[in-house]
Amino acid sequence: MIQTPYLLFLGDAPDALSAKVAQGIKDWRPDNCVGQYRMEGCNADLGLTDMTLEQAREAGAKTLVIGVANRGGVISQSWKKVLVQALEEGFDLASGLHNLLRDEPDLAAVAAATGQSLHDVRVPEVDYPIANGVPRKGKRVLAVGTDCSVGKMYTALALDSAMRDAGMKSTFRATGQTGILITGDGVPLDAVVADFMAGAVEWLTPDNDDDHWDIIEGQGSLFHVSFSGVTMALIHGGQPDALILCHEPTRTHMRGLPGYGLPSIEDVRDLALRLSQVANPACKVVGVSINTQHMGEAEAASYCQDVEARLGLPTVDPFRHGAARLAQALAEV
Amino acid sequence: MIQTPYLLFLGDAPDALSAKVAQGIKDWRPDNCVGQYRMEGCNADLGLTDMTLEQAREAGAKTLVIGVANRGGVISQSWKKVLVQALEEGFDLASGLHNLLRDEPDLAAVAAATGQSLHDVRVPEVDYPIANGVPRKGKRVLAVGTDCSVGKMYTALALDSAMRDAGMKSTFRATGQTGILITGDGVPLDAVVADFMAGAVEWLTPDNDDDHWDIIEGQGSLFHVSFSGVTMALIHGGQPDALILCHEPTRTHMRGLPGYGLPSIEDVRDLALRLSQVANPACKVVGVSINTQHMGEAEAASYCQDVEARLGLPTVDPFRHGAARLAQALAEV
Repeated sequence: MIQTPYLLFLGDAPDALSAKVAQGIKDWRPDNCVGQYRMEGCNADLGLTDMTLEQAREAGAKTLVIGVANRGGVISQSWKKVLVQALEEGFDLASGLHNLLRDEPDLAAVAAATGQSLHDVRVPEVDYPIANGVPRKGKRVLAVGTDCSVGKMYTALALDSAMRDAGMKSTFRATGQTGILITGDGVPLDAVVADFMAGAVEWLTPDNDDDHWDIIEGQGSLFHVSFSGVTMALIHGGQPDALILCHEPTRTHMRGLPGYGLPSIEDVRDLALRLSQVANPACKVVGVSINTQHMGEAEAASYCQDVEARLGLPTVDPFRHGAARLAQALAEV
Repeated sequence: MIQTPYLLFLGDAPDALSAKVAQGIKDWRPDNCVGQYRMEGCNADLGLTDMTLEQAREAGAKTLVIGVANRGGVISQSWKKVLVQALEEGFDLASGLHNLLRDEPDLAAVAAATGQSLHDVRVPEVDYPIANGVPRKGKRVLAVGTDCSVGKMYTALALDSAMRDAGMKSTFRATGQTGILITGDGVPLDAVVADFMAGAVEWLTPDNDDDHWDIIEGQGSLFHVSFSGVTMALIHGGQPDALILCHEPTRTHMRGLPGYGLPSIEDVRDLALRLSQVANPACKVVGVSINTQHMGEAEAASYCQDVEARLGLPTVDPFRHGAARLAQALAEV
């Protein structure tokens, strides 16, 4: 569990896109952010107050979160200077970089000396159990996609937000590094050892109030041959009561797999439902989330209407239309 | 890759069952075994020549394989004495125990000093790639089951043997610790990190001759919620051309999951085929393997006949009837 609130480290980000993790934290958990830290040459700006480490400390920040990709896979000496100082000022550090903070001898030594924590959210910090399949109290919804990177995390976060707006009890359950940095907690499922994947998802979504929803961030796709095992563990460990189908209509092949065409939304509906009902016979498909970022306004609306008519399920792009209709569908489960 | 041939270490096995790993090696790869090493109080006997370390060394043995379960999860001092001496005599050590050889300071130190290898087959020794889904030359068959521990490894080994008898080209591809010790090579799939599972299976079953069959050892079950993600990675990483369905008819619930009933053989056929065809549209289900160990001779024969009539597929218990009919079915693919 990462201590909040955060100071968001943007470093020397060459552009806004390279700071998309920080942007996600600011968009979805603004209350977790006291400000941003930018170095000379930084071309990203979240619109948060620029702060020194000292100012952020006074404002209550507990963790410096690296919200920017590093160039060339190296944690540069100019970053190191800030990171070391942050540890000495009493901050923990959190990062989703491929290079682990703990593998940097200077950061590890200063963290040990100061008693501060280094959170590498790509690496599991818990010994997860093997899944036991026992039904749990409370309700769970899982986003499943026709492909990787079609908007499953965005859909889950938007749904969480819409459910809170509607006065429903919900918790976003992160299963990837960006989600974990956004919420400060979760399971980096793609880094969990095979035997414990489903158990990690059970651990992430424990017993809860009968009217509480865990909104489980999806990963991969049943139809993506590189990562389908991770998706399967989410379905069987998550025991979802409800599924939301996610799709990006303009994609011509599966991400990273040029020889593989996309399944239809109906294919995902049928297969994911069949598999979900092994763990939870009451599971239903309740809605569809379309990522229309590569479509115009009219085309997007017309596409969603067509899918809605075809599948008989509320169909929205949460970015354009909000997720209120999906939240409403869950309220009726 | 573990060096063969082996001296099989039975230690102080309290009974034959505790030496079942050694029994498997002797049954399936007798040519890999020069003899057995038994300590005082050993109640298991594989019928191999009892040898001292020196005799085994002279007979050409290169690796001492721990073919027995340890009591209480501890590598005892009486075992250690033999294991240390084996390293000093020039043997490598191989083990599938939960306690790793490498975690024993004395074994690690003597191995380093003598230059011998410690093979803990529960732990991956390779950095596997992420699966790329590219079709490979040669053919592959995968055993899929209604449950865990229904005889998938036995079926695959029997099939490999029957195919060689029939003059076909085949290789058994181990995906679990016992299979790896039997053949000296393989992938301990349940210990691989989630993102690399399917890639590990691709790595295990590379391009081969057009008329060569990889016989991939199955793991888990699509219907076993604890391990279904591993099964999924085998299906999508293995790109099977053929599936063999495995079932144990007397089981009343999924192994370790009292609340979960077994699927029908037809359920497994339909779901496994649907998923396999994502990676290999030409995949077919070619036969059924029934584990009839808890049935009498007549009951077993009648059960297999019924399944054969119902599914229209050759159906055998490889232990009772041999796997020749399954090999024949593959020859016709």
